[in-house]
Amino acid sequence: MHSSSSSSSRFAKPGERALLKHIRALAAETQKNALQLGIGDDCALLRLSKSEDLAVTTDLSIAGRHFRLQWHPPQSIGHRVLARGLSDLAAMGARPVAAFLSLGLPRDLVQNQRARERRRWVERLFDGFFALARAYKTPLAGGDLAESPIAIADIVLTGAVHRGKALLRSGARPGNLLYVTGSLGGSAAGLAALAQLGGRQNSPARSALPNPPRIPARLKAILTPHLYPQPRIAQGLWLARRSLASAAIDLSDGLSTDLSHLCEESGVAAQIDAAALPIHPAATLAQALHGGEDYELLFAAPPASRIPRRIAGIPVARIGRIVRRRPSAPQITLMTAHGPQPIIPGGWQHFA
Amino acid sequence: MHSSSSSSSRFAKPGERALLKHIRALAAETQKNALQLGIGDDCALLRLSKSEDLAVTTDLSIAGRHFRLQWHPPQSIGHRVLARGLSDLAAMGARPVAAFLSLGLPRDLVQNQRARERRRWVERLFDGFFALARAYKTPLAGGDLAESPIAIADIVLTGAVHRGKALLRSGARPGNLLYVTGSLGGSAAGLAALAQLGGRQNSPARSALPNPPRIPARLKAILTPHLYPQPRIAQGLWLARRSLASAAIDLSDGLSTDLSHLCEESGVAAQIDAAALPIHPAATLAQALHGGEDYELLFAAPPASRIPRRIAGIPVARIGRIVRRRPSAPQITLMTAHGPQPIIPGGWQHFA
Repeated sequence: MHSSSSSSSRFAKPGERALLKHIRALAAETQKNALQLGIGDDCALLRLSKSEDLAVTTDLSIAGRHFRLQWHPPQSIGHRVLARGLSDLAAMGARPVAAFLSLGLPRDLVQNQRARERRRWVERLFDGFFALARAYKTPLAGGDLAESPIAIADIVLTGAVHRGKALLRSGARPGNLLYVTGSLGGSAAGLAALAQLGGRQNSPARSALPNPPRIPARLKAILTPHLYPQPRIAQGLWLARRSLASAAIDLSDGLSTDLSHLCEESGVAAQIDAAALPIHPAATLAQALHGGEDYELLFAAPPASRIPRRIAGIPVARIGRIVRRRPSAPQITLMTAHGPQPIIPGGWQHFA
Repeated sequence: MHSSSSSSSRFAKPGERALLKHIRALAAETQKNALQLGIGDDCALLRLSKSEDLAVTTDLSIAGRHFRLQWHPPQSIGHRVLARGLSDLAAMGARPVAAFLSLGLPRDLVQNQRARERRRWVERLFDGFFALARAYKTPLAGGDLAESPIAIADIVLTGAVHRGKALLRSGARPGNLLYVTGSLGGSAAGLAALAQLGGRQNSPARSALPNPPRIPARLKAILTPHLYPQPRIAQGLWLARRSLASAAIDLSDGLSTDLSHLCEESGVAAQIDAAALPIHPAATLAQALHGGEDYELLFAAPPASRIPRRIAGIPVARIGRIVRRRPSAPQITLMTAHGPQPIIPGGWQHFA
């Protein structure tokens, strides 16, 4: 959080100044070599080796749209905001260099805490953020903090990628095979369970603080893919280092939508084998095809590329192939036991 | 705007897809060498020479706090959002490399237009943004676009700075002289005039679109410093190249607040000569001391540094000096004909 901006200083009443100090101390812990100068000046300074390019991505998360204060624990919101950005780096085969977080929050979320909770809402958001930042060695190098009528978070991630080694969306060619890491639909299934839970526990709020549901132990496993998704940094780095993939994208919007982006940028079409999809045990086929926020990697590779069954501990499934684009044919076709079916990107509504 | 994010694709109904294409085309025009890969993939790729570091800054702007839809024309909002980020680069002595813009907007601002206006609100915002981007050779390399209940914009600027040449906040030493570019208080004076104008013309809105006041020609000159501030990129580069300044900061929050940041980071105190302040002809002393958003550069330099009267066409005024910090003395003192007066950072309210 740089202290120069008008927003942060307006925000920084005595109580908030302590928060800024707290964030700055936590951020300092995570900072390392590539960062020449962190929080406290007008800009952060990054240094790369001469053989690397810098990858930059930004993702905006808005309350009511990307998370719900009444459903998501603050730790999960902090985690998910950072995971979105890290996942974009993973899709490029980039190593995280530094994160920047711009946060707009209603005053109540910054100042208040409930009797039963040791830490303020915003501190718990940063608990989740920094736990993931430490796990993926990602220093928080700056950002901005402002009072806002609704909660929003914009995450900027910078990463280093060896010149000429970045995984792009545009390199898929007919005949390439399609692969995906991990399993699909787990996040959508978790979100559905979270919505049910939030609906059941909707006790009238006695304060302006949001009241996310208490999560029973038996539900933790099913909610984790949604609340705490893991970006596939190690898998992206592995693929980029070996130049095995012709194209890659992360699954933030869902397989059907993200595959259509990859096909669009590569000028190709794709076939998916329904029987080969690694559907999460709690998810439906529709959730696996159209549910977003799994943050797995989808990639294409020539048949000659030897793709292992696991990369850095995560299973990899071959789910289909790239084909030539034809004006009369759908961009994505699902191959099933009952024959081929066209897939409409983001076709979630058709199934829900 | 990268098309991968869930937000942008949810946003991208047919009408909005056209907007994304439009932005992408405009952005492509502004892109140049340092940018290896722009909008359309998971991340943008930046390349620097081995003698340069990358400066990164982010600034969050929120409707009702940093701008008002009922007061600010959309062109001004687009301009001001970018100017805030460019000004942080100027304060480091960095050359702009690439900008990233995350935009959250209510649906009406994206879709609708008034009969009397040729272009939609959001298009006019980008008119203002890209006019400034072209003037300062700053490519738009990516970002995010989401529907939001309130208008917000987070700007990320990256810039290149020669290693060891960055202007920091922390280098001011007792005996250094204090300088400021341009004039002070013009933005606060313009904002006051804009508020009056907005108040007078507050016809009841007949649509959900904001209704910023029509600006009479006679008011253009007084409103320009507020609506269209110019970041001091050339002046920052000039100072950094010659290593003439010991510390620098941009005036986003107002002289009193930003000087206190500089003193804080340098561990010093400062004296300001009231008679030497380059007060904007339309502004008061209070506006010059505490009014924010002038986006001029404030810098310190050893007495031996020969600072010219103008840098790259903009006047430079010597306004005071850095002194030793003493526990009993105020951090900032205003030297007047009636003797010294302590200055409270952000003391705007005391004058208003």
